[in-house]
Amino acid sequence: MKILSMQNDRVKKWCQLKEKKYRDERNLFLIEGEHLLFEALKNGIVKEIITTEDVIYDNLLPHYYVTKEIMKKISDQVTISSVIAVCEKLKKSEIVGPVIVLDGLQDPGNLGTIIRSAAAFSIPNIILSSTSVDLYNPKVIRSTEGMLFFVNIVRENLEHILPILKQRGYTIYGTDVLKGEDTAHLSFSSHSAFLIGNEGKGLSEVARNYCDNFLYIPMNSCCESLNASVSASIIMYEFSKKSDSYE
Amino acid sequence: MKILSMQNDRVKKWCQLKEKKYRDERNLFLIEGEHLLFEALKNGIVKEIITTEDVIYDNLLPHYYVTKEIMKKISDQVTISSVIAVCEKLKKSEIVGPVIVLDGLQDPGNLGTIIRSAAAFSIPNIILSSTSVDLYNPKVIRSTEGMLFFVNIVRENLEHILPILKQRGYTIYGTDVLKGEDTAHLSFSSHSAFLIGNEGKGLSEVARNYCDNFLYIPMNSCCESLNASVSASIIMYEFSKKSDSYE
Repeated sequence: MKILSMQNDRVKKWCQLKEKKYRDERNLFLIEGEHLLFEALKNGIVKEIITTEDVIYDNLLPHYYVTKEIMKKISDQVTISSVIAVCEKLKKSEIVGPVIVLDGLQDPGNLGTIIRSAAAFSIPNIILSSTSVDLYNPKVIRSTEGMLFFVNIVRENLEHILPILKQRGYTIYGTDVLKGEDTAHLSFSSHSAFLIGNEGKGLSEVARNYCDNFLYIPMNSCCESLNASVSASIIMYEFSKKSDSYE
Repeated sequence: MKILSMQNDRVKKWCQLKEKKYRDERNLFLIEGEHLLFEALKNGIVKEIITTEDVIYDNLLPHYYVTKEIMKKISDQVTISSVIAVCEKLKKSEIVGPVIVLDGLQDPGNLGTIIRSAAAFSIPNIILSSTSVDLYNPKVIRSTEGMLFFVNIVRENLEHILPILKQRGYTIYGTDVLKGEDTAHLSFSSHSAFLIGNEGKGLSEVARNYCDNFLYIPMNSCCESLNASVSASIIMYEFSKKSDSYE
């Protein structure tokens, strides 16, 4: 179907998906660009394809052919792509194996980068506290570089989920800039949970109380802390070194 | 001095410093917030202080008291700070010791994060290729978290500087997602240069030709690469483990 008018109802509905409220209401989100589209198609979550080109990506899915102006309106990027797809939010699975727990992480780029590193270092789960940035924020999706399909990401209240992990025998690691076990000495256990705090404030009191142990990354005393996605990635990197999980 | 008018010439000149062209022309840049101001004051580079509060930060420096509206106009952030300072660009020193070489890095957040990690892992130098994002871009400054004062950062044409490093006995390491030496086996030498490529395209042909060796970070095959600031940080982290440079 061709859509030429900016006032078209579908265009309005697609634009609304840039807001969390509508994404939650309809259980949908947008992805931009062919790389993400191909990953999403493999995962069977694509509902509609919107494109400025005369192409068919999948015979079974509705395609909407739009003008560049309409694309620009729907897009979140400065340089628009030729394709945007409406996708169903990802299904969550039960947490099995190591997990990264993000406690009030705010920066979309940091979340996307952590998801990408989790896929790289074979960490199968991420728990996103209810106080963290929305997974389906377009900037998060973009900075995952398509890796969001390789990690089980669940949004949970930490007061609810941390006691459950503890009951299930997980060791909960906090991060601390001053004290704790050197991250390099971390040993592998599939029942490990690594807490990463908010960019400015670090770990919340609630989360801190559940920690069994603290990890520390040795660094020069001039520096107070690392970027949250860097800390998380170094922990996952060290952890993955101890496992045999590479495919 | 009090400034109440948005049309004031000084306000216009301050706003211009959000653009690279004017920063280069005047050799000045802006920093926002008290944390960065205190670091800049320690480094003696502050020229003028602009604030919405009735405070004196330094008796020897001119203070301009402005309205919140003016502050908002000068600021680059959504939530404005109470203080902005005009600073002289940092002086460059000769490159002594290990160095990170950024080849066409584009994302301001990535550059800021790499500077922060360099300070943390005691890497004293960063070479920024002439094709990379401007160091004095407000987003770069912000994401360094004040760490830009602890690293010697020089902007250079790589075709000029890489042969000089080679002549001086540096080993030049590239990064590669498929082949190379495992980063964990890296040994310490103060004459080491680590090349990090552009976010999308990786290393340029020119830079690649100067590499003596390639480093590789083992990762799951589902993932093509890590975020550039994460790769750089993991290399610096591993490298710093081998040195005794922590203060």
